[in-house]
Amino acid sequence: MDLTKPRTPDYLALNPTGRSPTLVDGDFVLWESNAIMQYLASRAPNALWPDDARGRADITRWQSWQLMHWSKEACQPLTFQRLVKKILNLGPPDEAELAKGTEAFNREARMLDAHLSKRSYLVGDKLTLADFAVAAPLFYSKEAEMPVTPYAHLRDWFARVSALPAWRDTAPARPAAAA
Amino acid sequence: MDLTKPRTPDYLALNPTGRSPTLVDGDFVLWESNAIMQYLASRAPNALWPDDARGRADITRWQSWQLMHWSKEACQPLTFQRLVKKILNLGPPDEAELAKGTEAFNREARMLDAHLSKRSYLVGDKLTLADFAVAAPLFYSKEAEMPVTPYAHLRDWFARVSALPAWRDTAPARPAAAA
Repeated sequence: MDLTKPRTPDYLALNPTGRSPTLVDGDFVLWESNAIMQYLASRAPNALWPDDARGRADITRWQSWQLMHWSKEACQPLTFQRLVKKILNLGPPDEAELAKGTEAFNREARMLDAHLSKRSYLVGDKLTLADFAVAAPLFYSKEAEMPVTPYAHLRDWFARVSALPAWRDTAPARPAAAA
Repeated sequence: MDLTKPRTPDYLALNPTGRSPTLVDGDFVLWESNAIMQYLASRAPNALWPDDARGRADITRWQSWQLMHWSKEACQPLTFQRLVKKILNLGPPDEAELAKGTEAFNREARMLDAHLSKRSYLVGDKLTLADFAVAAPLFYSKEAEMPVTPYAHLRDWFARVSALPAWRDTAPARPAAAA
């Protein structure tokens, strides 16, 4: 089965939303990236997903905020309008959508920057799944022209996270390099 | 401190997003409703949040989908355009937003309805936090004119969940009754 084509009947039988990613682990099929991250990190004791109720709830807080506000309202609209539309030849960016996305980006980034002014990582001052979830939508910040300049703590934190071998070695190829 | 006014400095010191809800448990402050649900349900063994990695990841899958797709793309736009705007005197519904929300509602409801055609509850055929998270945005389905009619399994499931004493006794007052 070719899992790179998410709309085939075989794929839809595993993940009826047609979205990616999907994890197949024996007879257990899981979709939604934050759920997959938590499941994989549950396999062995580790600091990314510490086995205590407060730590896990704190990480889930940031993952929930990332889904509904950080990605959906701020990073995704800017990435879609400025990068995805270009790649798929969908015409010029919609200025009203850009204005809405930019306003949301500044609102959420200001909160995140203030949080990161007092700590090196999002939860408990150690790297956790929360950092992975919140950093991910920033990997196209340059192409999507996300207004990161005023947020020094956010930029420093993103530099720390993206310098980790796990990110550095698997970062998506820049569109310019792929062309 | 009056926690019903989410934009006061006192509230923003607890929850810098200014959104609700916020849980204060001793020195632990938590926001984002799904994280709060998981944290509260972690306090004692219970079937709503079973203590096994697959069960929890399965629940988190549905909570993640609820945030990003079910609420944000489908239920929220319809509720905002048809109910919130009326309450706050923000003018008539935006027809383009209604069309987008209706399309998203049908797309996500079709998937949910198919899932519920084979089971009584979302995860493991027992009531869990997943049902609470996914049912919540439907409580204003009537006022928001969400197109639920074609989805019989979804309607039956929602009737089961909303008949639980916990929901029945705490359901928001209907706007008509409150007026």
